[in-house]
Amino acid sequence: MFTLLVHDRSARLGHVTTPHGGFDTPMFMPVGTQATVKGLTPEQLVAAGATIILGNTYHLTLRPGDELIRNLGGLHKFMNWNGPILTDSGGYQVFSLAQQRKITDHGASFRSHIDGTPLDLTPEKAVDIQQNLGSDIAMVLDECPPGDADETTLRAAVRRSLLWAERCKKHQSRQGQALFAIVQGSTNLQIRTECARELVDMDFPGYALGGFSVGESPEAMHAALPECAALLPEKKPRYLMGVGRPIDLLVGIAAGIDMFDCVMPSRSGRNAQAFTSDGPVRMRNAVHRRDSAPLSSDCGCYTCAHFSRAYLHHLFAADEMLGPTLLSWHNIAYYLQLMADARAAIGQGRFADFHAGCLARWNARS
Amino acid sequence: MFTLLVHDRSARLGHVTTPHGGFDTPMFMPVGTQATVKGLTPEQLVAAGATIILGNTYHLTLRPGDELIRNLGGLHKFMNWNGPILTDSGGYQVFSLAQQRKITDHGASFRSHIDGTPLDLTPEKAVDIQQNLGSDIAMVLDECPPGDADETTLRAAVRRSLLWAERCKKHQSRQGQALFAIVQGSTNLQIRTECARELVDMDFPGYALGGFSVGESPEAMHAALPECAALLPEKKPRYLMGVGRPIDLLVGIAAGIDMFDCVMPSRSGRNAQAFTSDGPVRMRNAVHRRDSAPLSSDCGCYTCAHFSRAYLHHLFAADEMLGPTLLSWHNIAYYLQLMADARAAIGQGRFADFHAGCLARWNARS
Repeated sequence: MFTLLVHDRSARLGHVTTPHGGFDTPMFMPVGTQATVKGLTPEQLVAAGATIILGNTYHLTLRPGDELIRNLGGLHKFMNWNGPILTDSGGYQVFSLAQQRKITDHGASFRSHIDGTPLDLTPEKAVDIQQNLGSDIAMVLDECPPGDADETTLRAAVRRSLLWAERCKKHQSRQGQALFAIVQGSTNLQIRTECARELVDMDFPGYALGGFSVGESPEAMHAALPECAALLPEKKPRYLMGVGRPIDLLVGIAAGIDMFDCVMPSRSGRNAQAFTSDGPVRMRNAVHRRDSAPLSSDCGCYTCAHFSRAYLHHLFAADEMLGPTLLSWHNIAYYLQLMADARAAIGQGRFADFHAGCLARWNARS
Repeated sequence: MFTLLVHDRSARLGHVTTPHGGFDTPMFMPVGTQATVKGLTPEQLVAAGATIILGNTYHLTLRPGDELIRNLGGLHKFMNWNGPILTDSGGYQVFSLAQQRKITDHGASFRSHIDGTPLDLTPEKAVDIQQNLGSDIAMVLDECPPGDADETTLRAAVRRSLLWAERCKKHQSRQGQALFAIVQGSTNLQIRTECARELVDMDFPGYALGGFSVGESPEAMHAALPECAALLPEKKPRYLMGVGRPIDLLVGIAAGIDMFDCVMPSRSGRNAQAFTSDGPVRMRNAVHRRDSAPLSSDCGCYTCAHFSRAYLHHLFAADEMLGPTLLSWHNIAYYLQLMADARAAIGQGRFADFHAGCLARWNARS
C-alpha cells in the first residue's frame, strides 16, 4: 500500500493507496473526532486540500456507537467523506479523557466522560470497533504513559502495548483495512528501540510513533524524532501521532515521518488563531479591525480569497459561527499547503532549504 | 425596478431589478443580521437558492460600524455577497433590543444592548447608515408599537412614522439605492388605511407592511393581510417585514405580498428544528437516531442530498457546529423552494390549489 518515491536525506516522498483512494506523503490528516471535522462540510475539506482524515474510536463508540455506524453503511457513508479514513484505537483517549480507568493486561475498564457509562476496551474490542467503522487504516490499542513517566512505567506500558499489538493483529480480519502498530517509549531511545524491534518482527503494514506531544518539551521530541523514525521500516509508512505545530511537522518530515494528525488547525481556528507563512495571527487582536488585507496574501484558500482581516475580526467580535468555520478552513488549508510545499521540496532535493526558509519567515515575525 | 408579470387572484408574480442583479417575486430574504447569515458561507447561501439577503442597520452600526464598512467598500464587499441586499432602518431593533430608549419627533436616543454605549438614531442618521452600507434597498425609519398597543399609541406612532418617512425620503441621495416606506397601524385597518394613503402620496419605489408578527395572533395577522396589501400600489413591490412561518408566507402571497424576511429558518435550524413539505421535524428527537433516510426525501438541498437523519441527529447530540450549519442550509433552501413553487403555481394560475395542498400536507403530519 506504500510506495516510497524519493529520498531527500531522511525526508521521504511517497504515496499511500487505500480502498478509498490514495494520498501523497508527507501528509497531514485533519481530525474528525465525532464524525465531522468541526465546522466544515466534506466539500469544504476537499476544497482545503484534505485527502485523508482521522476519526476517533473512543468518541464514536460512545456516541453514536460503532454498531449504529456499521448498520448505516460505515463511517465514510455516515459522514459523507469518500476519501481515506484513519481511525485511532481509543487508547489515547482512555488515558486522557475517560474516568475511573482500570488497566490490566486484558484491557481497559473505564467510565465515559460524557455520562459515566461503564465501558471496556480490549485489543479485540478496539479492532472490532474500527472494523465496524470501516476505516481504511486502523491502529492497534496501546497504553499511553504520560510524558514524564519513569522508566519502570514506560517499560510496563511497552510490555502491555506489545501484548495488545499482537492480539490486535491476530483479531483483525477486515479486507482492505490496514492495521498500523504503535511504538511507545517516550523519549527513552533504548525502550523505543526495543519496542520497535518487536513490532517490526510482527510485520505490520505501517508504523506509528505514539507517546509524543504528551507533556515532554518540544525540544526533547525534536531531538528524539530522527532516531525514532529510523527505527521504523524503510518501505512502510511512518505516522507521528497527535503532532503538532507547523514547526513540529517540518522536524518530523526531516526525520523521515510520512503522516501526521493534530486538532491544532481546527481548534486554533475556532479560537481565532490563524497560522500563516509569516507565523501565527490572532484575529481577535484590534489591529485587524479596519484591515482590508486578506489574512494571508500568499494563501489560496477560500477564506483568504474572499474575506478581509477586518471581516474575520468582526465575525469573532460578534461571536458569529462563520468565524470559526472560515478560520478552521484556512488553518487546515495552510497545513495541507505546507505539506504540499514540503513534498515539492523533497522532490527537488531541497527540503533542508525549505525547512530553514519556513523557520526564518516564522521567526522574522515573532 | 419592479415588473409585475402575472396575477393569480391577488397573488402576484413579479421581478425586481437592483444594481446587484434581480430577483423573482414572491421572494424570501434570509437574514444576515451581523453581515453573515448565521453559519453559512455566501456560496452555501447561493447553493440554497438565495438571491437577496437582508442586513440589519442597528446591529451593523453598533458593530463593526457603518463607516468602517463604507471604508472597506460597502456591505456587499465586506461580507462577500454580490447579490442584492435590503437593509432595515434599525427602527424595529431600537424598540425590541435597545436599552433606556427615549423617542421624540427628532429621533430615538437609546443605549446599545451590547455595551450600553449611548446612541442616537434619527431618520437622517438611518438613511446615512444605509447609504454607508450601500444596500440596494433601504427602509425608512419607523416607530414600531407593540402588537397590543391602544389606538392612541398606534396613531401617535403612525404620525411620527409619517414624519420620519418624509425626512428619510428628503435626505436619501444614494444613486441606485431604492428607499421603501413602511405602513404601520397593527391590525387597525382604519389607521393602516390612513397611513398607507399618506405614504402612497409621497411616492416611494416600494412599500412594506411593518408592525405584523409583533405579538398579535397569527389569525389576526392573516385576517388583516389581504386588505392591508390592497392598500399598497399595484405596480410597486410589497414587503411584509419580519414574517414568518411557511404558513404565514403563503397567506401573505395570497394577499398580494411580494417580499418576506424572517430569522426563523436559520434560528430554527440552529435549534435542531427543520421545516419540510410534511411539516416540522425536530432533529433532537430520538426517533431519528438510527434513521438512514434523508431529512426530506423530496428536498434537493445539499443536506438532504448527502446526509441521513441519523447523522443530523448525531451532530446535534454531540453539539457539533456542522448540525446548525446543515439544518440552517436546509431550512433556507426549503423556504426558497417554497417561494419557487409558489411562483410556478401563480404563473399557472393555480396558487389557491397549491396553497391548499401545502396546508393539507403540513396538517396531515401534525
